[in-house]
Amino acid sequence: MDLHIENILNDLQKDDFQAYLLTQFTNVEYISNYKPTSFAFCIIKENPIIYASGMDMELAKRDSSIEIKEYESYEVMVKELKDEGIKNLAIEPTLPYSTYVRFKDDFAIDSKTYIDKQRMIKTPEEIEKISKATEIAQKSFMQLDILNNKSSEKEIAFDLVRYMIQNGADKESFDTIVTSGANSSLPHAVPQAKKLSQPILIDWGAMFEGYCSDNTRTMVYTEYQHEIWDIVAEAHDKAIKAIKPGMKCCEIDKVARDIISDYGYGDNFIHSTGHSLGLDIHETPGFSPKDDTIIEEGMVITVEPGIYFEGDFGVRLEDTISISKKGNVIGDLPLNIQ
Amino acid sequence: MDLHIENILNDLQKDDFQAYLLTQFTNVEYISNYKPTSFAFCIIKENPIIYASGMDMELAKRDSSIEIKEYESYEVMVKELKDEGIKNLAIEPTLPYSTYVRFKDDFAIDSKTYIDKQRMIKTPEEIEKISKATEIAQKSFMQLDILNNKSSEKEIAFDLVRYMIQNGADKESFDTIVTSGANSSLPHAVPQAKKLSQPILIDWGAMFEGYCSDNTRTMVYTEYQHEIWDIVAEAHDKAIKAIKPGMKCCEIDKVARDIISDYGYGDNFIHSTGHSLGLDIHETPGFSPKDDTIIEEGMVITVEPGIYFEGDFGVRLEDTISISKKGNVIGDLPLNIQ
Repeated sequence: MDLHIENILNDLQKDDFQAYLLTQFTNVEYISNYKPTSFAFCIIKENPIIYASGMDMELAKRDSSIEIKEYESYEVMVKELKDEGIKNLAIEPTLPYSTYVRFKDDFAIDSKTYIDKQRMIKTPEEIEKISKATEIAQKSFMQLDILNNKSSEKEIAFDLVRYMIQNGADKESFDTIVTSGANSSLPHAVPQAKKLSQPILIDWGAMFEGYCSDNTRTMVYTEYQHEIWDIVAEAHDKAIKAIKPGMKCCEIDKVARDIISDYGYGDNFIHSTGHSLGLDIHETPGFSPKDDTIIEEGMVITVEPGIYFEGDFGVRLEDTISISKKGNVIGDLPLNIQ
Repeated sequence: MDLHIENILNDLQKDDFQAYLLTQFTNVEYISNYKPTSFAFCIIKENPIIYASGMDMELAKRDSSIEIKEYESYEVMVKELKDEGIKNLAIEPTLPYSTYVRFKDDFAIDSKTYIDKQRMIKTPEEIEKISKATEIAQKSFMQLDILNNKSSEKEIAFDLVRYMIQNGADKESFDTIVTSGANSSLPHAVPQAKKLSQPILIDWGAMFEGYCSDNTRTMVYTEYQHEIWDIVAEAHDKAIKAIKPGMKCCEIDKVARDIISDYGYGDNFIHSTGHSLGLDIHETPGFSPKDDTIIEEGMVITVEPGIYFEGDFGVRLEDTISISKKGNVIGDLPLNIQ
């Protein structure tokens, strides 16, 4: 039996649960290799099973490593579980309320992060895919020749995605951010149909065989922008250097946040220092003030400090870190693009 | 006060609820015009408020028509609601379980579809945006010159998205499907890096000012493929002709399904006949066997019958229907592409 499933079965047993319901597409994909396109109920138990949508049956039977059954109705599913003697059900924290209510009268339910716990620790194959996604994304970024690019933000975002696909990506790993001038103060700005102004902030990633990459570079121009860039770069570099298995995630956030605060810009660092990635672009744990997860080898987490001035400009620098004995930056794109 | 909010307040009052919590990005966008990029808690009550993420504050203050407060913690939010005397809370059905548990001990909770009920009926402005999205998508499709196109599925999908963006789309409204040959039997096939084979099935849409379009065309070649195409076209045309306010959604599904079943292909029609669209590509209600929602003027619902032969080929034809006194097809792209 697959190691992930075995680990989850052990977790279930420890907590006296008999089954674990997963519906999030990337969770089902992680467990079975079948990525739902409509809906699916993956139930991990002694004999794991996926109830797939009729329209997904061909795909599910082709790709899934675990048994597939066609979904008929909640009633049938609940009955089959009860017939097996299942009395309680662990669910994923993201399960929609409307699905929860379909099960709550027939089973004792609690949400568990067994699957997140597994997904936190990447296998060498997963790290290889994230590295390949990063390689594609960074190579594509260099093809943009951003400093001499006369296109609009929207066109550049589009060209970047085109290069990534030409270089072997499945697609972009999230909506590509190409922003410049005042809009760069919005961490998740949408590219506009206007020529680039200054500074230029690009936050982009490729997806390769289902796995995401994530990077940000900011190209600055004025003396003040350079000053801010240097502070963000210092926070970026020192946070990465600080990463060590055994520390808490919030301690890495503190390294970056303290540096930015010491320069007087604490209030302008308006998000966490980083997030895990994998099949999803945002996974747990994250380098955030409230996350006391212990850092372990095999985690892959971004470091992306930023300083933002409302209506003026923003600077963010982001790399993705593969954690072994220390934090190793994935990819080789310089921080300073000149 | 905004009409949508007023309607929801009336619904709340009728059901003896004091507040309605929305977190789904398109729900928050629908109510406030602010589209969250991180997370947000929109609470509709006498004095509606949105608790926005710190990183979204600039955007939220810029775009939102209702009051914005920076999110601090669940505890603060719960306390402020209780201080206002709020004792019960309606939630959206899609609310994640992990959010539900943050509120369940302090409020009487039930899920309500007040927001879906509003979003079902599109305003003329919303229909205008869906129509514009459709116009962009259909014009872009014609630019592909699909019958003489020698590119790979993946390249064609990419070209289609590029044309849509060049023609004014925000982006594609969902992952563009360009599939051909045996893969066309997978309703949600992923474009491959291989030249087109036959038949060719393209399912695509543009997003314009946040609103989605959705169409499918299948180009067939053999006599048997033509025979199947004719049946799907008959189901498509007759289902559209049957649409009338006052009927139930499932009755339209039955029109399409009966035609396909009468020809002996009932088991090969493996999904619903259609779904609503708007800010999301899949909204309620849908033309599905189990949906007994009454069809009303202002709804916008797709009609997309299909017949699929596992490992062989599939045919699907899809248009988006704006419902007034009858069902009006949005756009003017011929069903038969020659």
